[in-house]
Parts: sequence; C-alpha cells; structure tokens
Amino acid sequence: MIVVMEHGATQAQIDHVRDRIVALGLSAHLSQGEFRAIIGAVGDKQPEHQAILEAMEGVERVVPIMKPYKLASREFHEADSVVDVGGVPIGSGVTLIAGPCAIESRESLWRIAEAVRARGAAILRGGAFKPRTSPYSFQGLGVEGLKLLRAAGDAFGMPVVTEVMSIADVDVVAQYADMIQIGARNVQNFNLLAAVGETRRPVLLKRGFATTVAEFLMSAEYVLSRGNRSLVLCERGIKTFETELRYTFDVAAVPLIKHNTHLPVIVDPSHACGRREYVTALALAGVAAGADGVVVEVHDCPEAALCDGPQALLPDMFAEMTRQVGAVAKALGRELVPARTTRL
Amino acid sequence: MIVVMEHGATQAQIDHVRDRIVALGLSAHLSQGEFRAIIGAVGDKQPEHQAILEAMEGVERVVPIMKPYKLASREFHEADSVVDVGGVPIGSGVTLIAGPCAIESRESLWRIAEAVRARGAAILRGGAFKPRTSPYSFQGLGVEGLKLLRAAGDAFGMPVVTEVMSIADVDVVAQYADMIQIGARNVQNFNLLAAVGETRRPVLLKRGFATTVAEFLMSAEYVLSRGNRSLVLCERGIKTFETELRYTFDVAAVPLIKHNTHLPVIVDPSHACGRREYVTALALAGVAAGADGVVVEVHDCPEAALCDGPQALLPDMFAEMTRQVGAVAKALGRELVPARTTRL
Amino acid sequence: MIVVMEHGATQAQIDHVRDRIVALGLSAHLSQGEFRAIIGAVGDKQPEHQAILEAMEGVERVVPIMKPYKLASREFHEADSVVDVGGVPIGSGVTLIAGPCAIESRESLWRIAEAVRARGAAILRGGAFKPRTSPYSFQGLGVEGLKLLRAAGDAFGMPVVTEVMSIADVDVVAQYADMIQIGARNVQNFNLLAAVGETRRPVLLKRGFATTVAEFLMSAEYVLSRGNRSLVLCERGIKTFETELRYTFDVAAVPLIKHNTHLPVIVDPSHACGRREYVTALALAGVAAGADGVVVEVHDCPEAALCDGPQALLPDMFAEMTRQVGAVAKALGRELVPARTTRL
Amino acid sequence: MIVVMEHGATQAQIDHVRDRIVALGLSAHLSQGEFRAIIGAVGDKQPEHQAILEAMEGVERVVPIMKPYKLASREFHEADSVVDVGGVPIGSGVTLIAGPCAIESRESLWRIAEAVRARGAAILRGGAFKPRTSPYSFQGLGVEGLKLLRAAGDAFGMPVVTEVMSIADVDVVAQYADMIQIGARNVQNFNLLAAVGETRRPVLLKRGFATTVAEFLMSAEYVLSRGNRSLVLCERGIKTFETELRYTFDVAAVPLIKHNTHLPVIVDPSHACGRREYVTALALAGVAAGADGVVVEVHDCPEAALCDGPQALLPDMFAEMTRQVGAVAKALGRELVPARTTRL
Repeated sequence: MIVVMEHGATQAQIDHVRDRIVALGLSAHLSQGEFRAIIGAVGDKQPEHQAILEAMEGVERVVPIMKPYKLASREFHEADSVVDVGGVPIGSGVTLIAGPCAIESRESLWRIAEAVRARGAAILRGGAFKPRTSPYSFQGLGVEGLKLLRAAGDAFGMPVVTEVMSIADVDVVAQYADMIQIGARNVQNFNLLAAVGETRRPVLLKRGFATTVAEFLMSAEYVLSRGNRSLVLCERGIKTFETELRYTFDVAAVPLIKHNTHLPVIVDPSHACGRREYVTALALAGVAAGADGVVVEVHDCPEAALCDGPQALLPDMFAEMTRQVGAVAKALGRELVPARTTRL
Repeated sequence: MIVVMEHGATQAQIDHVRDRIVALGLSAHLSQGEFRAIIGAVGDKQPEHQAILEAMEGVERVVPIMKPYKLASREFHEADSVVDVGGVPIGSGVTLIAGPCAIESRESLWRIAEAVRARGAAILRGGAFKPRTSPYSFQGLGVEGLKLLRAAGDAFGMPVVTEVMSIADVDVVAQYADMIQIGARNVQNFNLLAAVGETRRPVLLKRGFATTVAEFLMSAEYVLSRGNRSLVLCERGIKTFETELRYTFDVAAVPLIKHNTHLPVIVDPSHACGRREYVTALALAGVAAGADGVVVEVHDCPEAALCDGPQALLPDMFAEMTRQVGAVAKALGRELVPARTTRL
Repeated sequence: MIVVMEHGATQAQIDHVRDRIVALGLSAHLSQGEFRAIIGAVGDKQPEHQAILEAMEGVERVVPIMKPYKLASREFHEADSVVDVGGVPIGSGVTLIAGPCAIESRESLWRIAEAVRARGAAILRGGAFKPRTSPYSFQGLGVEGLKLLRAAGDAFGMPVVTEVMSIADVDVVAQYADMIQIGARNVQNFNLLAAVGETRRPVLLKRGFATTVAEFLMSAEYVLSRGNRSLVLCERGIKTFETELRYTFDVAAVPLIKHNTHLPVIVDPSHACGRREYVTALALAGVAAGADGVVVEVHDCPEAALCDGPQALLPDMFAEMTRQVGAVAKALGRELVPARTTRL
Repeated sequence: MIVVMEHGATQAQIDHVRDRIVALGLSAHLSQGEFRAIIGAVGDKQPEHQAILEAMEGVERVVPIMKPYKLASREFHEADSVVDVGGVPIGSGVTLIAGPCAIESRESLWRIAEAVRARGAAILRGGAFKPRTSPYSFQGLGVEGLKLLRAAGDAFGMPVVTEVMSIADVDVVAQYADMIQIGARNVQNFNLLAAVGETRRPVLLKRGFATTVAEFLMSAEYVLSRGNRSLVLCERGIKTFETELRYTFDVAAVPLIKHNTHLPVIVDPSHACGRREYVTALALAGVAAGADGVVVEVHDCPEAALCDGPQALLPDMFAEMTRQVGAVAKALGRELVPARTTRL
C-alpha cells in the first residue's frame, strides 16, 4: 500500500502512521516530497490494513497495490479454469445455456427443453425460486419446479442450472441441479455465497447490476475460499443513466475479468437488454469479446410467460442465434460446445 | 396502462392485443393516431399485466399509469406514519441514531454508547452481523454482539438497532434488538424482506446503492405486505460515476420518497461519503431536505476500529453535528427527538 | 402525448389542461379512471408541448408517444443510409478508420499512415485540434496539423477525418478534411452542430459519455435539420460507476441506434476502454453487434505519443485486429470495406 | 507518481521505465516487492507524464499523487475567494440568484425581475442564448435578450448573469452582463472556457452532468489559467440510473469542492430536479451543506414559459424559499447577502 499524507500533515502524524505500519507487522518506507509525505507499506493484508490507515489523522488516502482477491486471481492460478457441469464443460469453447425464465408447468417446460436441445443448447436453465421486484408477482414453483427441471434435463440429456435465493434452499437445489445459480440481487449476500461455497456443486455467479468487476471478484472469492473451485462468472448488465434498455450490457467486463482471473465467464444478454429483438446482437458481442458461453431465455409463447416474456427468444430466433454465435466462434478459432449425446 | 403499438403494427396485431387486454379482465380503449395505434387498458394489475403485453408482437412499449406499490403509497395512507422504536419515535421530529459500525468488545461499546447518549443520540446502533466485501475481513461477533448491544442499550437508556443478514438470524435479532436493519446489499433479498415482514419489530430498510426510489418502495412493499407496518426507510448513497467519495448521497430521494409514501425517511451520511470530514455536511443537507432522522457511525478510536474507521465521527465531532442538526431543524420548525429519560 | 393528472387533481385543473391542449391546436381525449384522470393529446409537437403541460397545476407527468427526432428516424427514412467519405462508403460493409490520436509531426504521421494503410485501414484519422482535460496539455498543431493530415491522406490514398472544436474552425477543417468529427464533449454544443450542418462535408458525430441514445439522436437532428444528410454516429463509451476502464462501452447502443435510425453507426473502442489490450475485444464486439465500422488509434511508439499513448494499438496489433474483425464480419455475411486503390 | 509494474514484468521493462522517468527529468525510486516492482517518480508534471508511463510495456497502472489542477487548489490559495458580481459578493454569506429560464419579452421579464427583487434575490438571471436538446425548440432572443436583461437589472438594482454558448458571443455577453455563465453542456468546451478566461468578467461555471469533481476543477483551471480569477462554481445535478427526477443533485460535491478549492460554490436546484415541488428542499440541502448561494428559476406563469416551465418556482414559492434558506443560513452562523440598495 501507499499512504499519501495530507499537504500540511505534521511530523507527529507522519511518525504515528509509520509506527502504526510497523506495529501491523509491515515494513514502512517514508518518502518526503516537496508537497506531501508518502509512506510505502510492504506486506499488507487487504482491505483491513487500508481501512486502519485511512482512519488516521493526517492521511489523505491509501492506494492499494495488490488486488484484494487471491484465489480468483490469475496470479494465483495462471491457466484458464474449465468447469464441468454434469458432463458439459464451460471454459473450453462456447457453451449455450437456454430455457424459460421460470418453470411454469411440466408441459411448457418439456416443449421448451426439447426445442432448445434441438437448436443447440447444451445446458437447460429454468427458475424455481424467482426473485421478483413485486411481492404480488409469481414467485416460482419452488421444490416442485426443481423436480420438473431435473426430470426435463434427464429426459432431454441436458444438465440443469437454477437459482437459489436462500441458505435454507441450498441443499435441495444442490440435490436436484447440476449447477447452482446466484442471481444478481444476491451477489453480495455473503452468507449465501459462503453456503454455496460449502457445497461441491458448480456455481454460476451473476454480476450484480451495481457491482464493479473488482467487487464481483471479491464475491467470487467468498465461494472459492470455502473450497468450491467450480465457479463460472456471468456478465448480465449494469445500471447506468441509459434506461431505454433494461440494463447496460458491459461487454468490456468479459476481457477485463478474463485478464484478472482464471475463471470462465459467460454472458446473459436476455436480462441485460430485456427485449428479445436485441438479444442476438448482444450474444454475438459477448462471444466476440471472448465469453465462454451464453445463457438466454427461450419461450414458445412469450405472452403467456409468467415472468419476463418480453425478453424471451422464440425457438426459431434461438436457432438463428445459435447459428450466428457458432459462426462467430469459428471465425475466432473456437467451437460451440456440443450437447451431451447421451440421454438417460 | 397505455400500450403503444409499433409504427407499422398490423391490424391483426392490434386486434390481438385488444383481445388479450379484455381476456385479462381489463377494459380496452383503442386510439388510432396517424403514426401509431395506442390502446388504453383500464383496471390493470402492475407489473404482471405490463410484462404480458410487452411480450406481444407489434407492441413497442407499455406505459404504466399507476404506481406498482400500494401499502407504501400516500394514496393508500395520506398521513405521515410515525414508527415507535422502543419508546423513541421516528417520524415526528429529527431522531439521532449513533454508535459504532461493528460491536467490537464490551469495553469499547460501553464507552461509545455513553459518549453518544451524552451528546444527543436517542437510539444506539451497532453491527453484530457484518456484510463485508472480503471474506477475509472481520465478520462481526454474531449473537455475542447482540447480547452486548442489548445490555448497552439498557445501561444507557437507548433502544437499539442492528442488521440482520440471514433468515436464520431474524428471530434472534428480533429477540435482542428494538429495530431490525436490512442493509443496502439485501434490499432485494426478497425472502429476507418477507421474513422481517413476518415479525412485529420495527424495520430500518436501507436503500440499495443501485436501487431506484420506485424499486426501493417495492422492497418496502414486501415488508408491509406481510403485515409489519413499522417501517423506516434510509437513504445512504447510490453508485455513480463520481467515485471520489464512496457513494453519491441522493438527497433528493428524501423529498421524493416523502412525496410518494407515508413512511418516515432518515439518512445515513457515514456510509454515503465514507469519510468523517464530510459526514456533518451531509447530515445537515439531509435534515434540511426533510429527513426524519440521521444515523451515523461514531468511534472513540477510529484507527482501532475493526470496520469502516475512516467514516466514524469522533465523539466531539458528533456533539457538534448534534448541535448543528438541532439548529437547522429548529430553523425549519422541527425539533430533535430527545432520548428516553428512563434508564433501566 | 398522454397527460397523467395527479391523484386528487380538481375538476378545474382537469378542465384547464383540456382547454390548454385544445388551445395548442391539438385534440384532447379525457379518460377518467378510478384513481386518476388521463388526457390524451393528439397531434402534439415534441418537446415544447410536453413542457407546457408538465408545468400546469395538477399534472403528475406527461408521457410522450412519438419520438422527438424526425429526420434521424427510421420512420422518416426506412432504408439504411450509406455515407460516402472521399470515395469510401460507411454503411455498406465494415469500414476501418485508423491513425494517431494527435498529429505530432510529418515524420510520425507518414510512418503511421503507411502502416495502417498497409494493414487494412480505409480512412485515416488524426487530431489537429485536441480537446484536453488539462489546459497544460498539448493542444494540437492546429491548421498546420490539418495540412499534414491532408497531405498524408493524399500520399497514401486515404480520405481523412479530424475533429473540429470551434465554429471558427469549421471552414478550415471542411477545406482540408473529407469528414468532420464532432467529439464527445461537444455532442450538445448545439451551435457547433448547426455549423457543421451548414457544410456539405460528411460528419462523424461521437456520442457524449453522458448522452442517452435518444439525446444523441436529437444532436444528430441538429446536423440533419440544417441540410447535411451525410452523418455517421459513433459509440465510444459512457460514464458509469465501473471505472477500472476509462468508460463503459455501450455495445447495445449499436443495435438500438440502428433500430431507431437509418444512419450508419461505428464504434471507437480506443476511447471506450483507454487501454490497448482491450481494444481488439471491443472492436470485435461492436462489429458482431452490427457496427458499420471501427475507428481506432494506432501509434508506432506509444510511449512517445503526445496524447493517449496507453490506448494506441501498435501496428501489428492493428493488423491482427483487422484480420479478426474481417473474419467476424464474414461469419455474419458482411465484408471489410477495401481501401481506395487510387493514390494521388 | 507511483508506477506499478505488472506481475511478471521483465527486468528490461523495469529498467526501461526507470530510464524513461530519469529522461523526463524526474527522480526514480525502485521498490521491488514480492509480487510486483513499484517505481516512485518524484517531480512529475500531471497528466502528461502519467500517460507516457502508462503507455509503456510492463506497466500495470500509474497512480498520481498530486492533484492535476493548480490555480484552483487550496494548496495554491488557502483562503476562501470572494467574487464580486456588480457590487454583490458571492462567497461571503448566501447569495440568491433568480429569474426566468429564458428571457421571453420585456413585459414578462420586468414582472419577474420585480417579483424576485422584492422577495430576496440579489442577482437576476435569464437566458438569451439557450442550449436546447431539440433544434425545433425556442433558442432564445439572442442579443435582443441581452439588452432586455441589462435594462431589467438596471431598473431593479440587480447585477445580471446570462449564459454564453459560442466564442463569437463572448464579447457581446461580457458587454451586457455582469457575470458570464458557462452551461453544463459546455463544461468541457475548452476553447469557450479559454475565451471567457480572457475576459475580466466574473464567470459562473456549471458542472457538467457527467463531470467528476476533479474534471470540473480542471475546467475551472482553464478559466483561471487565462488570468480570470473571478470564478464561481455551480453544482446542478449529475446523470445516474435514478431518472425519476431530471438529474441526481450531488450535494456532497459542495463540501468536496470547498475542501479542494478556494472558489465559491453555489447550487442550482431547479435544473437538478426539474420539478418545482422539490426545488426548495434541494436549495435548503445545498445551503446546509455549505453552498455560498442558490440560483433558481422563477416564472409568474410557468405554463406560458417558453422553456423549462415545470421547474420554475412561482414568486410566492420563491419568497418562502428565501425565508427558509435565510433561517437555515442563520442557524449555521451565516447570512443572506442583501440586494444592492441602489437602483440606477
């Protein structure tokens, strides 16, 4: 860390900071400039030590040098990680995940699962526990939905991913799903992150819509530090002043995250834009920028969907998206990850 | 709702939307302009019906007319609500809440509680369960902290407020605390909102740093709709491109929320700016804009604080803040809410 | 427009609004709901009429139905426009524009122009008038720079584009350049927009970093309404809470703009991210999302650059970008626009 | 500056950076940590040197230590500056500036000027050149408006402030107005800043809605560095994801700017919120946070206003605002600045 003292800091304040650095077990290096004293602190533990020093009299600011995350960092693990989700890899090639926003009924789920499997999806998604802005909205089928999802995945040869919202549900979700999703609104629900970190199920962690990439990787660290190393990150849009679409899809987060971490990164264009007519363009952008996969919502009758109908692709739009994503991936020397050939 | 059809929508699409509106039990009023058809839908349930209609072919967008929250709205309850927190009101006058960020030890908590009580605080705050960005940071004393907080509140005659992060902890927090806080990161942890809504403890709900006022009031609706009507809202800064301070304190949210809802609103300048030298200015701004109270962090030795030392006021700074806040309140025809006179 | 009256608006207020609508020459349609009166106004002129009605007592808000821009809209002009820049089209295929941030000297410009021409650029860029945040920074060579740019373009067979910052310089820039750029900071410098609208030189209009797409198209309207129909729009990143890169590249703006307007759209990944290691990923994302071209900064010795060295591609990085952009374009059924074969 | 090398930077890269620092005339101090090399550069010129070093191979980032502005900084000028505007000070007490958004006619301006003078305004505002988002909106009366404003100011004993949008108009505005305003959209129109810096008229510089405080002070530096030291800054709201009000009023910018600079700071609540019912609350917040004044729009018939009617206070609302602002100022030991007693 670099401690920048205020212009006008007293010698006593400077000495006190230096002594404190030493008392923390670090080494201190004072550099007295014309306008300000600067004190380098070597060997620090982020972010605790930063807060302590920033709280001291005469300190203008503290500049961290090291990244605050460790297990998530490229420095810790140089090679790209590949996460196996029920026999389908994420991190080697481009993996397509598709399905309805919410699991609504057996009939509807079967139709959609069959449709996306036939059009290129390797993993099936579907929500059983739904985080809804309104308490008066459909909140999902719960455990009944989980069972339907498991059965549909088995029927059509696709591993399944679904969201968990509460610690109390982690076990049952881990029992039925091949991959556990943490939604954007829970990206800093630290207890929930720790709880899925205790399982050994692969985790799909969505970026919060107000989470910096650095904060996002600290949330990843919560999962990793509990011993679960099967973690996939997902960019899904952030909140900005531009509100014509639902969120602003931060496509630069893809190469930025991949530069800083070894974890696979996928994109969710459906939630990013909220309107089906823009989903394919954003999926292509994400893959062109280096994403390891795409998760999209597909519905065969969006106006009857119980959740987020406006952003659901129709099956034939999904087929066209698959075709174009495959072409772009190939142009960049990569391949679509095929679905598992085995059904149960 | 107003359904705006696309330029170029076909008659069949227009008819289909109109039929759908009727099938939803609403009445439909078509207005065919030169460039676009517009269909008014009267009697709608927000936001379900909006999503259904937006998902339809030929629909450009759907404009809601009614607010999506009900129990939180001024239309539902015209008069300002006052929430009683262990004998101290919030919503009639300006209530000061102060204490350390985290409960660290009996000695430190007693010193700080005594100091803030003597300098104008009516309610004691302190964190036992701490949401920390880093898994390697101090996570709070847990139940042991709750017991200390309860004892300190009793010793110095102050009701106490503390944060809950997990559903599993709601009961124990409700047992020890006079008021349950939901932190910014959990503002859309809907299950947790529902859980505190099931208690009859007053709730302090902090705005998320990426939550619009409208979304914030939907989160309030989760608590209210479970029957808990003792709810206080808190503005504590939002994320913007201006990052020199920790967050951007959205002072306009105070009158905006008070215009739209009957619930009391307080401000948290400590988390909003993250630096003690700006806390008093923001507290004054909040009260001048109409806030019903201020919650601030106070520590007698910030550089030894286990959490957020840089933003903690020293006791004498808090005394000065109390004096100035009291003067501004008085200038605007309001009064500081006195602390309870009875100690246990 | 739809005028939404406040809950509790009086009959007199409602009548007054209706009368005012009629007095403005529009037709008014009142719909009295259970909670609110709503008045449709047909035939309105945006945005004047909106402000007038919003200013009236009892009005909660006014919802515009029509887009406020006309000449820029797809409704006005259905087919994609193609802009000819000195013999090179923008809007049919993917056009590459490259060159240094600032024109620094004849030698350096010649080296860079030759390098980018040989590696796929069809148009040469370079700044003669530089908008710099600091008054102490290099401000560009001015007219001397324009002359060098013109000569370099002629020498290597490339049309040239450069920025104008002042109305006083519009004529001289139009004299030397094939295309006039309006930079992000001047996107709402309305007098300057009008001035370039009076010329018949093609204009490259960069989106402001705090401009919504709707506002951006209103700025386009300023140019178009003066009679200049050769206009190309450019997405170059917006300001958000994520500050690890310079701006947030809003890739969704590409399909969103193309949906709403007939004008060509290109992307500027250099300014969007500010670091050369991310430029290619963003260029690919932009083209995959539908951009008609890419403008990038290239320098053969970035550490000697007088401006924005950290974001300049080295020539060989640009060659690799060209190769990948060409492959992605081809995968999506499009082609790189070739450079002019004729040199002067 | 502190140069942080990448993890894995080679010795040659480190040496090259060190040599470059020395070649720039600075002194270099290498500190080789376990994971990264860090090189301190003392004596640097911001921001040129930063860009040069960031552009070099092996450099992860460069952390500036010194502020990039000089003349605007408190370090350059410790005491608060007071700016004299035609006999009315800004910077000692709380100065009220009021008037219509746009100058519309002699009759309307006289009525409004008389009304605001009688209710506490010390300076008259009014727009002659109007920056309008739409080319089809009223663009102001131009020079005719300037003459009316001058005459109204003289008639009612108030200095006048008005906006300039073009360099070509600087002289005529300086001729008729006591203070020249640079609007938010021109905050980084650097040529215009330089042009008003060449005059000796006081300047009112509005913060851009996407300008950080640091960038804002760099724009101030443009004016100051041309020799014009009579500069007042104005916070008027920034763009964020919260769009229910027009902008987000960044009240914390007031103490933040005052901490970093000696220049007076006022607030513009009218443009910040865009709705008259919130203007007073924000004015009070700004003054409570330390602002040296308030500029508001007042109109006696908002629904007839040619510009921004919804945000105009009615004269009696302005009177009440004056009363409350005066009370809050007094509570904090400050006073309203009285209007000039002399009329012409």
